[in-house]
Amino acid sequence: MQILDIRESTEKIQSSMRNAVIDFSKMTTSVVALITDKTRNGKPIIGYGCGSNGRYAQGSILRERLIPRILEAQPDSLLDESGLFDPFKIQKTMMKNEKPGGHGDRAVAAAVIDMAVWDALAKLEEKPLWRLLSERYNENKFDKKVLVYPGGGYYYDGKEIEGLRAEMAQYQLLGYRILKMKIGGADLKTDLKRIDAVLDLVGSGQNLAVDANGKFDLDQAIKFGKAIESLDLFWYEEPGDPLDFALHKALAEQYPNPIATAENLFSRQDVTNFVLYSGLRPEKDWIQMDPALGYGLSEYLQTMEAIGTLGWTRRQQIPHGGHQLGLHMAAGLQLGGTESYPLVFQPFGGFADDALIENGYTVPPDTPGIGIESKSKMYNIIKKLGE
Amino acid sequence: MQILDIRESTEKIQSSMRNAVIDFSKMTTSVVALITDKTRNGKPIIGYGCGSNGRYAQGSILRERLIPRILEAQPDSLLDESGLFDPFKIQKTMMKNEKPGGHGDRAVAAAVIDMAVWDALAKLEEKPLWRLLSERYNENKFDKKVLVYPGGGYYYDGKEIEGLRAEMAQYQLLGYRILKMKIGGADLKTDLKRIDAVLDLVGSGQNLAVDANGKFDLDQAIKFGKAIESLDLFWYEEPGDPLDFALHKALAEQYPNPIATAENLFSRQDVTNFVLYSGLRPEKDWIQMDPALGYGLSEYLQTMEAIGTLGWTRRQQIPHGGHQLGLHMAAGLQLGGTESYPLVFQPFGGFADDALIENGYTVPPDTPGIGIESKSKMYNIIKKLGE
Repeated sequence: MQILDIRESTEKIQSSMRNAVIDFSKMTTSVVALITDKTRNGKPIIGYGCGSNGRYAQGSILRERLIPRILEAQPDSLLDESGLFDPFKIQKTMMKNEKPGGHGDRAVAAAVIDMAVWDALAKLEEKPLWRLLSERYNENKFDKKVLVYPGGGYYYDGKEIEGLRAEMAQYQLLGYRILKMKIGGADLKTDLKRIDAVLDLVGSGQNLAVDANGKFDLDQAIKFGKAIESLDLFWYEEPGDPLDFALHKALAEQYPNPIATAENLFSRQDVTNFVLYSGLRPEKDWIQMDPALGYGLSEYLQTMEAIGTLGWTRRQQIPHGGHQLGLHMAAGLQLGGTESYPLVFQPFGGFADDALIENGYTVPPDTPGIGIESKSKMYNIIKKLGE
Repeated sequence: MQILDIRESTEKIQSSMRNAVIDFSKMTTSVVALITDKTRNGKPIIGYGCGSNGRYAQGSILRERLIPRILEAQPDSLLDESGLFDPFKIQKTMMKNEKPGGHGDRAVAAAVIDMAVWDALAKLEEKPLWRLLSERYNENKFDKKVLVYPGGGYYYDGKEIEGLRAEMAQYQLLGYRILKMKIGGADLKTDLKRIDAVLDLVGSGQNLAVDANGKFDLDQAIKFGKAIESLDLFWYEEPGDPLDFALHKALAEQYPNPIATAENLFSRQDVTNFVLYSGLRPEKDWIQMDPALGYGLSEYLQTMEAIGTLGWTRRQQIPHGGHQLGLHMAAGLQLGGTESYPLVFQPFGGFADDALIENGYTVPPDTPGIGIESKSKMYNIIKKLGE
C-alpha cells in the first residue's frame, strides 16, 4: 500500500458576513487529494481533505514542507502492523524537521492532509469513518444521531434585527433547534436587542448560544456575562483571546452558565495548557477543538486522551468547523455533537447533500470514508485534483 | 510618506548540521524589500527584512494575506502623528482579518515585514536602529558593547568530539568567550563526554551554555539537569517542549542554575503564559524570544512591556536568531545580549562583514537602519528585490 501523490489547491470559501473580529470576504482554504495505489472498480482510491474556515489556505507549507516529506518517505514506514496507512506515522513524517511550539498555520496544513489520510483509510476498509472510529477508539459504541447546531447569527449592517431573524428562522426551517449567534461586533445594548430578537424565535435560552469570537477583554467579558446570566443560554463562546487563561479563570468564577472555546487552539500542548490553567469547568463547559485546523483527527485523538486524564469527557467536546469530519467524529467517538454550516462557507461547509436535520439532530452517513463524494458542489471542485 | 511596494522571495539558509530535533539541510527563509516613496541621493529608501532560521519561508502567507493588506490600506493610516511610518499600525493592518490564537507561521511572516519597516524607519531618520530604539524606548540610554555568543556546537556524526572541538575553537579564535553547544541528540553519556571536551577548551562552566532544543520529557530533563548541575553552566536551554509549562516548573524546582528558553514562543500571549505558569525565575533564568520569528520587533516591545510588569527585566532577555536586528535591540534597549551566527545559516546569520568580536562582546554598527548593506553576501541577494 502506497501513497502515489498528494495534490493541493487553494480554493475560495468567502462569505459576505463578519463576526466581532474578522470579515470573511477573502477567506480561502486548502484542499488536497491523496492518491493511493489501490483501486476499486478500476478507479484509484483517493482520500480527500480540506481545511476549516477562518485560517486561510496553506499552499507554501503544503508544497514546500509537508507533502514532500511524505512522498520522500519509505512507503512501508507509513504503514501500521496490518499493512494499512498509519495516520500517526504519517503525521510524524510530515512534521519531521519541524521545531516544537508555534502551532499555527502549519497545524492547518497538516490537518488538511490528515483528513485525506483518514478518508482514504476508511475507504480502503469500505466503511464510513464514524464506524472505523467507533471500532478503533470507542469499543464499537457510536451515536445513531448527532446533536448539531448551525454556526451563524452574523451581523447585517443596516438591517441588524431583520437580517438576523431571517437567517435564524431559516435554520429552524432546516430542522435545527439550538442556534448560535455572534456577539461583540456591536455595542452591548445592540447585542442584547439582537439576542432578545432571537430568543423570541427559539423560545428558550437553552436553544441559543452566543459567540464573541475572542473579542472581549476581561472587563467586557464579565460585563457581558452579567448581562446575559439570567437568560440561561446554552453557552457563551470564545469570550476572550483563547490564550488568555487568566481571563477565562476570572470569568468562570463569576459566570454560572456554560462557557465554550478552543477552536483557535491547535495542538495538544495548547489545549492541555488551556485545560490546566483556564479554570474552565469539565462538568459544564465545552471544548471546541477543530480537527480540520489543529493537525487533524490524529492530533484530536491524542488531545482527547490527554485532557481525558484531566477530567474532560468526550461528551463535553463539540468540534468547531461545520464539516463532515466533525460529524463522523461526533458519531463514532460519541462526542457532545458538532457544529454545522448549512448556509455559509460554501461549498466546503455543511454535510452531504441529502443530510436531514430533525429537531437539532442528524444521522451520520453510510458512504465509505468521509463522504465528500456525497457533497456535490464540494466534490466537483476537489475531484479535479484526483484526475 | 508611503509604502510603494513590498516584494518577497524564498531563500535557502541550509546548513549541514543537526540539533536534537531537526536537521537544517532544507531550511529556508523569506526575505522582503519594502520600497518607500522617499529617496536619498536619488535612490529610493528601501527597508529590508528576513526571517530567522528554524521555521522556514512563508511565501503564501506574505503574498496572499499580509502584503496585500498593507498595500491596500490608506497610506496615511500607516503613519504616526509626526508623519513617519508607525510599525504598530502597520502590524495591526497586516493582521486584519486574522483570528486570535494559533501563533505560528504567520508570526514568522509578519516578523519579516516588521523588520523591513523598522529598517526603513531608521534609514528615514538617518540613524542606526539601536539609536532610534534607545531614544524612543530607553530614555537615550544604550550599551556601547553587547554580549554575544555563537549559536553552535552541533553534532558531527562519526567524528563527534573532534568535529565539535574544532568548531568551538574556531569561535574562540573569532573572539567569543561564552560558547553554546547542542545536547539531547545523543545519549547522556556521549553528551557528557562532549561537554567535557568543550569545558576543557573554555575553561569554566560560566563560559558554556547547553541547548536541548526542546527534546527532553520531564524525566530526561531532570536527569540531564542532575548530571550537569555541578558544572555550573551559563545556562541550560530549551530542556523540553516550550509549551510544557509543568515540565519547566518541575525542573526549575530542582535545577539550581540558569535555564533559558522562548525562541519557539511567538506572541506576547504565549510568552506571558510561559512566564505566568512555567515557574522560571526572573532573577536568574533567561527569555530568548526571537523578533525575527514572533511578529517582529513591534511585538517584542509589547511583550517586553507585558513581562516587565511580571518581574522580568530587559537584562534577562537575550534574543535568539543571531541576526543584526537582535544586536541593535540588545544595544538600544540594553538587553542581556544577543545570539550570533558567525559560521552557520549563511548568508543571513551573523553581523556586518566588519563586525569584530572581542572577549565575547561586539560594538553595534553606525550605519543607518539595520545595516544589511554592510553584510555583503546577504545584501547581494536581498538587494535584487529592490531593483
